[in-house]
Amino acid sequence: MYTLLDMPTTGNLNSQLNPHVSVDCVIFGFDEGDLKVLLIERDLDTIDHKTLRYSLPGNLVDDNEDLDTSAGRVLKELTNLDNIFLEQFYAFGDPLRVKNSADAQWLNAIRDVPTARVITIAYYSLVKIGDYQPAPSSFARKAFWCPISEVPALAFDHNKILDQALISLKTKLRIQPIGFELLPDKFSLGQLQKVYETILGTSLDKRNFRRKILNKGFLKPLQEKQKGVPHKRARLFEFDKEAYDKLKSEQFYFEF
Amino acid sequence: MYTLLDMPTTGNLNSQLNPHVSVDCVIFGFDEGDLKVLLIERDLDTIDHKTLRYSLPGNLVDDNEDLDTSAGRVLKELTNLDNIFLEQFYAFGDPLRVKNSADAQWLNAIRDVPTARVITIAYYSLVKIGDYQPAPSSFARKAFWCPISEVPALAFDHNKILDQALISLKTKLRIQPIGFELLPDKFSLGQLQKVYETILGTSLDKRNFRRKILNKGFLKPLQEKQKGVPHKRARLFEFDKEAYDKLKSEQFYFEF
Repeated sequence: MYTLLDMPTTGNLNSQLNPHVSVDCVIFGFDEGDLKVLLIERDLDTIDHKTLRYSLPGNLVDDNEDLDTSAGRVLKELTNLDNIFLEQFYAFGDPLRVKNSADAQWLNAIRDVPTARVITIAYYSLVKIGDYQPAPSSFARKAFWCPISEVPALAFDHNKILDQALISLKTKLRIQPIGFELLPDKFSLGQLQKVYETILGTSLDKRNFRRKILNKGFLKPLQEKQKGVPHKRARLFEFDKEAYDKLKSEQFYFEF
Repeated sequence: MYTLLDMPTTGNLNSQLNPHVSVDCVIFGFDEGDLKVLLIERDLDTIDHKTLRYSLPGNLVDDNEDLDTSAGRVLKELTNLDNIFLEQFYAFGDPLRVKNSADAQWLNAIRDVPTARVITIAYYSLVKIGDYQPAPSSFARKAFWCPISEVPALAFDHNKILDQALISLKTKLRIQPIGFELLPDKFSLGQLQKVYETILGTSLDKRNFRRKILNKGFLKPLQEKQKGVPHKRARLFEFDKEAYDKLKSEQFYFEF
């Protein structure tokens, strides 16, 4: 357990924290066949209730740092995840968003100005779970990957923030080929379909999926086939970034 | 000219304003063949310099209102535009964004806490200019449509906010058929192409444009032709919302 002296980032000991604006990070983790989100458990000594012990990693911004820097710093301080591309997606400003009584109790324990209205700027990212090992620090007692389907009631408006992040992620998947970063350099169409199905939370028709994605012209078929499967070894493909960039640079096209 | 007593919304007389968070509105106006943005001129008696007299309509949020409500209120207070669908698109939080000396001088004249760091939540919208007649009030001395190509140096980071809004607008045009709201119910393909060219700031190949947009299947050709033109009267079309919704509801499709 930590003491107040171990908490350089929670406000009591750092007069530079801005009590009115925070950042929250929704880190989606892809784990073949499963979509998860990075949560922290807050120190329970500061909360009587056992409710709302979990939250997204988030904290107040420092008064002299910009928002992007703040999001990266806060994520690292609470979970040790570093060098992740974080994309800002929405600001949440319900005047009552930190007024829940269990949350207020926690804020009373750790904030200089616990009753301040806090507007939060939310960021999201999508990573391969295998590439990152969360480790808690500051006011996080645990940092762990939670399957999207098992997310409990979270602190503040964090369930709403998560829902909105998921909408942003699905939209992005529709308009950009982000799935490829989650796969090895060489992959089968089955693996690619699984990425889409996992993020969209739905199953897709195999034939339609293949036809549509191959029609895009930026999947390069290789001579190689899958290894380590007994039979029906699938052909492997590579993402052809050059072909994709060419498509994007064409004068104009509709995507709706 | 107003006196301080006429300024209920600028902070001196309203203790509920939150000095740390503001909203700014980027209202794009479409005027056949021209894309404009709604600007205000700030009262010059509060600025010695003649620089930075123009800005986007924006102000501090009220401490008990949510962000969307705040954006609508501020827009109405400064420009009299009302009932506009405002979409939040980005939060701007450079620690130095209100520290320019001319801006600081203006803030000194009208704010309770003129030195506070202000993070702003930016909104945008796209309207038909003919539908709205701006009228200035509060600290706006003028409210006017300015062609995008003629936007001067603006207060704070407002040029950057405008640039980002334009990117959001262009992205939205690519992924949603928003152009139709700017046209009469019945329109020619030439008129529609003009909307796209105006927003994208580029000319498009006529044949490609027609082929691509007609392929989408949600433009309904009418028997009617354009009126009021001497010859080569173009066929008119209607936007078929039902066909569009059907397309959107299909199980899954790529847009990249």
